[in-house]
Amino acid sequence: MKILALESSALAASAALWEDGKCVGLYLLNCGLTHSETLLPMAENLLKGCAVPLSEVDLIAVARGPGSFTGVRIGVATAKGLSWGLDKPCCGVSTLEAMAWQAAHLEGKLLCCCMDARRGQVYNALFRAEGESLQRLREDRAISLAELLADLPEAPVLLGDGAGITAKALEEAGMAYTLAPENVRIQSAWGVALAAARAPQEAWGEPEPVYLRLSQAERERLAKLNHDQTKLLEQDKGE
Amino acid sequence: MKILALESSALAASAALWEDGKCVGLYLLNCGLTHSETLLPMAENLLKGCAVPLSEVDLIAVARGPGSFTGVRIGVATAKGLSWGLDKPCCGVSTLEAMAWQAAHLEGKLLCCCMDARRGQVYNALFRAEGESLQRLREDRAISLAELLADLPEAPVLLGDGAGITAKALEEAGMAYTLAPENVRIQSAWGVALAAARAPQEAWGEPEPVYLRLSQAERERLAKLNHDQTKLLEQDKGE
Repeated sequence: MKILALESSALAASAALWEDGKCVGLYLLNCGLTHSETLLPMAENLLKGCAVPLSEVDLIAVARGPGSFTGVRIGVATAKGLSWGLDKPCCGVSTLEAMAWQAAHLEGKLLCCCMDARRGQVYNALFRAEGESLQRLREDRAISLAELLADLPEAPVLLGDGAGITAKALEEAGMAYTLAPENVRIQSAWGVALAAARAPQEAWGEPEPVYLRLSQAERERLAKLNHDQTKLLEQDKGE
Repeated sequence: MKILALESSALAASAALWEDGKCVGLYLLNCGLTHSETLLPMAENLLKGCAVPLSEVDLIAVARGPGSFTGVRIGVATAKGLSWGLDKPCCGVSTLEAMAWQAAHLEGKLLCCCMDARRGQVYNALFRAEGESLQRLREDRAISLAELLADLPEAPVLLGDGAGITAKALEEAGMAYTLAPENVRIQSAWGVALAAARAPQEAWGEPEPVYLRLSQAERERLAKLNHDQTKLLEQDKGE
């Protein structure tokens, strides 16, 4: 089985081709360019480089979030488009689980997957690395750094683009940690392929983006609605 | 500083762009296509994807062997050509050391870097992983699997494209080992960049391919020469 995996949920974007347990190709760009411009050409170039026609791909896999609103939307939209166009199934996987698969070999370690969610928060999940498998300890969540620190039972291995800010918070609190090396730390389509290859077929289907939080636009709209409502209530009271 | 790193010493070929301690991009193909056709286009596409013009690259790094004769020659020739054309320095690094850097985070472990050298041999080096650094325990060598097994003081972590045949030999001998996961195991330009970034400036210069063994053509020529000489000696004796 051939899986074309896509990851664009944060600053890095990547495409990977996976065949029967082997990573045939990986293309990763971590330079902050617009994913809408890079993701599809990367996947196209990768398949061309492997001499694999798109029609030979059996499954499209994508990181469905959490992550950047725009990044996740681009990844999921691209995967859905490919899936529909090719009439091939699609499988969305958790961005945080995908990055944990890249570190599953760190047997016995507590894997702390972190993405910078801004405003003092991280998107986070915790896993126990079990060599060939993973044990999920916490569901994907948006959590403040203070809450995360209080929830860590032991020194974690930090993964993901939020590893840096989490490391800083742990250091300030005098807590121990290990920063995973870059080739294991950065979320990539390699991890997405690993997660999708292990997902049961029932998990295939049209992937829905998972944001865990409202987007800034939605927050501002809600704040404005609340403000307007409060104002109306005050006017009512005043009358 | 920007490093463009190339790896083509075995079946996989890859290019990586490294900037000030960060991996900006990685393009890896592990599909057995001809490196002479893929390596340069991969590097070109990667730089284009990162919006970095070739003229901005400060150092060309390359895996100088050991490895496949053709693969090593293509990598070194490409790196030399780029270096000369751009008038930028070049740095050749050991293929085996480059792959060890990808696993330096496995602190305390014995890293056994293996490439399939055919005829029951592997190209091998041993390192102790020290987190941020490596301690070299054995120089790069061509060694039989039996000799390698006898030289292993403890259960190793296997890296490189020879990890599979080494694992098989260890299993048959009833010895323990860990197979590194694919994202750590496959030799890649990422490791080449890591090794080159740590190489002292004195190590820069025109890289020479390191084969450790004679090529098949050279072996056959030597065998023929020996054969002819023996024949001549026999003729001398007969006369």
